Amino acid sequence: MSSPAVAYARKNHPRFLSELKELLRVQSISTLPEHKADCRRAAEMLAAELKRIGMENVRLIETEGNPLVYADWLHTAGKPTVLCYGHYDVQPTDPDEEWLTPPFEPTERDGNLYARGSADDKGQVWAHVKALESLLAAGGALPLNVRVLLEGDEEVGGEGIARFVASKPAELKSDFALVSDTELFAPGLPTLCVGLRGMIYTELEVRGAKTDLHSGMYGGAAPNPFFALVEILAKLKDENGHILIPGFYDGIIPPSPEELAAWKSLPFDEEHYRITEVGSRELVGEAGYSVLERTWARPTLEVHGMPGGFTGAGAKTVIPAKALAKVSMRLVPGMTTAKAFALYKGYVEKIVPAGVEVEARLIHSGEPCLIPVNNPYIQAATRALREVWGKETVFIRSGGSIPIVGDFDRHLGVPSVMMGFGLPDDNIHAPNEKFHLKNFELGIESLIRFLEEAGR
Amino acid sequence: MSSPAVAYARKNHPRFLSELKELLRVQSISTLPEHKADCRRAAEMLAAELKRIGMENVRLIETEGNPLVYADWLHTAGKPTVLCYGHYDVQPTDPDEEWLTPPFEPTERDGNLYARGSADDKGQVWAHVKALESLLAAGGALPLNVRVLLEGDEEVGGEGIARFVASKPAELKSDFALVSDTELFAPGLPTLCVGLRGMIYTELEVRGAKTDLHSGMYGGAAPNPFFALVEILAKLKDENGHILIPGFYDGIIPPSPEELAAWKSLPFDEEHYRITEVGSRELVGEAGYSVLERTWARPTLEVHGMPGGFTGAGAKTVIPAKALAKVSMRLVPGMTTAKAFALYKGYVEKIVPAGVEVEARLIHSGEPCLIPVNNPYIQAATRALREVWGKETVFIRSGGSIPIVGDFDRHLGVPSVMMGFGLPDDNIHAPNEKFHLKNFELGIESLIRFLEEAGR
Repeated sequence: MSSPAVAYARKNHPRFLSELKELLRVQSISTLPEHKADCRRAAEMLAAELKRIGMENVRLIETEGNPLVYADWLHTAGKPTVLCYGHYDVQPTDPDEEWLTPPFEPTERDGNLYARGSADDKGQVWAHVKALESLLAAGGALPLNVRVLLEGDEEVGGEGIARFVASKPAELKSDFALVSDTELFAPGLPTLCVGLRGMIYTELEVRGAKTDLHSGMYGGAAPNPFFALVEILAKLKDENGHILIPGFYDGIIPPSPEELAAWKSLPFDEEHYRITEVGSRELVGEAGYSVLERTWARPTLEVHGMPGGFTGAGAKTVIPAKALAKVSMRLVPGMTTAKAFALYKGYVEKIVPAGVEVEARLIHSGEPCLIPVNNPYIQAATRALREVWGKETVFIRSGGSIPIVGDFDRHLGVPSVMMGFGLPDDNIHAPNEKFHLKNFELGIESLIRFLEEAGR
Repeated sequence: MSSPAVAYARKNHPRFLSELKELLRVQSISTLPEHKADCRRAAEMLAAELKRIGMENVRLIETEGNPLVYADWLHTAGKPTVLCYGHYDVQPTDPDEEWLTPPFEPTERDGNLYARGSADDKGQVWAHVKALESLLAAGGALPLNVRVLLEGDEEVGGEGIARFVASKPAELKSDFALVSDTELFAPGLPTLCVGLRGMIYTELEVRGAKTDLHSGMYGGAAPNPFFALVEILAKLKDENGHILIPGFYDGIIPPSPEELAAWKSLPFDEEHYRITEVGSRELVGEAGYSVLERTWARPTLEVHGMPGGFTGAGAKTVIPAKALAKVSMRLVPGMTTAKAFALYKGYVEKIVPAGVEVEARLIHSGEPCLIPVNNPYIQAATRALREVWGKETVFIRSGGSIPIVGDFDRHLGVPSVMMGFGLPDDNIHAPNEKFHLKNFELGIESLIRFLEEAGR
């Protein structure tokens, strides 16, 4: 089949790329307050471009953080409505000295475009905009109704968009969402992400003595909050990665035999992954599960930091009055954040060590989600991807959480098509982030064809 | 008996106190490099005062850390020579928000002087200087030969003084040492400390992945250094306070039946201690031993802090590449630091969790020590204390470590008289450190009378 919009995109690709570089030069780092104006500038650039290509009702929606960008085009009555999501904010760049070229001077090298935000997520956002431009320019209309919603706080928790979505505004009424913030499983392999782990992020605070005490004077009599945390944490997860909270695994919906078989056929080499991605002496986790099962379909429990006491150089012999542990759990389909936190809190309160008080606090949470692969939008996506990439689509999950996908599902009743074009070695959140140039090109074509197929 | 020096001290007490406040205003925090100049300033103030009161050969002795202060007065041939030791450096002040008055603005309240370093150890050092001033001013001479040696790195391990003492310099030739860095067992109860626990202070560093990883993507496959530390620490000490390092307790010399009986008759109320000093729900430690035995005569193992990962507010889902634990062990007579560290390190290397590398580093150490109570200087001290305080002296031990006492013993063959005037609730190493004003006053008188008795 031949799509005039794809032809338009191919013809205009050099311009698309040079425009993307302009967007990448904007230092829209949402974690750093000094870049607040840059975040707004990125939002304004996107709004201006959406207007220029013919989208309507374009506007910034203010939040407590950076503004959302909204646009729509709703002139195909009877066709479904897609909600296109992406984020224009980026991660910080430190450690800066490890970048081979400056993070905000986009540089082409070895078939890649190096810049902070190139893959996560400006390059993918720009692919959305350019797919819409190609469809509008080549056909004078879109093949279905389109709403665009972009945020600028994804890297800092996305509270603004979460609150906006939770308010169920009329302008978000859609049939499905298109989320391009994920990656291909391997170069050249069209991929749809159909499952995400949920999460509860908690703090355990342990209080012992009323004040910091000297470990010489009081060691042997005063409770040590760090040791209490050690005792608690050792009872939360065993050495084989098995979580010991009673009832924690109850109700988990395991992947189907078909899904497991499909994962087994993915091009995944555990030793290569260990060496190139993790870089540890060996991998860890529950016995009897593959790495993909462990990271995609099994709950996990991690400690991220243990603030308190003395952390400077040298020696301070303190038994601190209190200590904290930042503990998160990833959840999988069949689990809920409410039940997981209740089980965790209840268990922790049962195993409080001698002499201390323990408080378990929920910091934030996101539900797990699983997208049925037989929904018509997923089917339309696989047809488009097969055509553009010449291969069958693989369905994967992600061990991470994209809370907005859960929000779209819960508040809007809208399933997401997670069609992303990053690659596993794109160094997102790290120095030398890149976006593969071919993926930018084929990404735009895939999005054009997907929207055409979804609107058929 | 009436001592002109004691009369002089009483008359000049207000000035002594106001001078002490000057010294306490100097922020001589040895753990913080930015206070290096303050440490030197404290040393220079002490040297100037020693010179002013008539001590001789006053000088700073440079070390790799902060300078030592040396002074002597050696004009009583045939009399013994005492080596007076103290330290002018202080602990850091954090958490600053818990101080009722600023740590470096000495404030009198309820019969106490509140300031960082008031009890530990500037107040006691100043009592030495003022006792010497009183003796010299009232009699024109000292009752025995005196050397003064002060250090500025006690709170960071005291390596400088340890090396200096180990070199056995001629200027330290003495018959006994007078160390005032301890406390009364109870208010008004004259106390000599005759035993100290030793210590090894270590860092455990655990390295997992080559870089920080996202806990969503890698949780379930990447090793978590904090969990590895949890596994190691849980195997170092059990929930009953028993240290699990094989061979750790071998060779320990328990207190004699007489010493244990004397401890039983001390005015010690465990519940009062729990509530007023520790302030925890209950006390912890090895079953079958009293609190005094557990803190004075049993080894203990504590965690002081666990640096690494994410310790800010909110949630960052990082599996850190590395994490540390600051772990110290207190040692008792019959144990040596070399053997204890070797056993610890060897055991840790045997229980390394999957996927990580562990390094156990010794930060500093001090040997345990036990002073025979029948030596003539201890006897002279009990006579002086009986007179000033009107009570018989109690002999206690301290759970803390004063490594210099071991060094004086080992390198100079000099026994120490540990005559200190702190109180158990002085909050040393904690917010709201204080020195009881009466103890500063009677401390000076006790020191004067002790030096007179020792020189008889």
